[in-house]
Amino acid sequence: MTTTHRNETRIDVDPEVPLVRITREFDAPPAKVFRAHTDPELFAQWVGPRDTETRVDVFDCHTGGSYRFVTISDGEEYGFRGCFHEVRPDELIVQTFTFEGEPDGVALEKLVLEDLGDGRTRLTSTSLVDSFAGRDAFVASGMEVGVREGYERLDEVLAR
Amino acid sequence: MTTTHRNETRIDVDPEVPLVRITREFDAPPAKVFRAHTDPELFAQWVGPRDTETRVDVFDCHTGGSYRFVTISDGEEYGFRGCFHEVRPDELIVQTFTFEGEPDGVALEKLVLEDLGDGRTRLTSTSLVDSFAGRDAFVASGMEVGVREGYERLDEVLAR
Repeated sequence: MTTTHRNETRIDVDPEVPLVRITREFDAPPAKVFRAHTDPELFAQWVGPRDTETRVDVFDCHTGGSYRFVTISDGEEYGFRGCFHEVRPDELIVQTFTFEGEPDGVALEKLVLEDLGDGRTRLTSTSLVDSFAGRDAFVASGMEVGVREGYERLDEVLAR
Repeated sequence: MTTTHRNETRIDVDPEVPLVRITREFDAPPAKVFRAHTDPELFAQWVGPRDTETRVDVFDCHTGGSYRFVTISDGEEYGFRGCFHEVRPDELIVQTFTFEGEPDGVALEKLVLEDLGDGRTRLTSTSLVDSFAGRDAFVASGMEVGVREGYERLDEVLAR
């Protein structure tokens, strides 16, 4: 008999609009999950796949701020940037997102944290782009590994 | 025989994705049309329908900046805000957009300026949201009048 881990990452593509929806629960209250997304030092410790390192160049995580970070994998640097449309403490982060290797692409991302009680949180992250081809290429690019492993690393950061 | 004005505003809803596309030509070069979008004093002179006034509170129009302005109509104030994801001189502005009366709604807007030569510019502005119902409500809200009249006022600003 196998035990399924309770905190699985779900990645769904929306059938109606060019959007990806990621759902994940965490064994930590919303304030702690929020802080791991808004504090650049914590953020750099978990974002991305296990075999990468992240260097945060700009991380002004409040409404109207902006960010840039670089993920380093096998000596190669991959830059990501955007602006924070809205940051509502412990609840919501709405931001834009561009991978600098594809500078004309841009996604509108919304992170929602729900308090499940008992020190648990449900995170729902949506990423909206302007074409289904773009959305499907993003999903096919291997983002799934980065998301799953990133959230496992986030579990570890939250458990400290 | 009637003469159709050359610089008509086209507003199209995309059949595939929840996006509105506005197309308009201007008798001015891209640099001038761009400046009328990025200089807060000029912007306030043309944005919105004829019977409104605009007060710009924040307008930090560069990559990573943000904005807030208020449109005053019949003594009522309507606030709009967002962040500038990317501002590429004379070419492109990518920004987020929220009407504060509906604080959970957010659109990803992309303004593209094309040089048509002979001192003329084609502007294409797209607005992407996460549902067709939201997009269609936005179009039904009377935005068309504001867009058409706003661009007529922009013609006047550009002619000075």
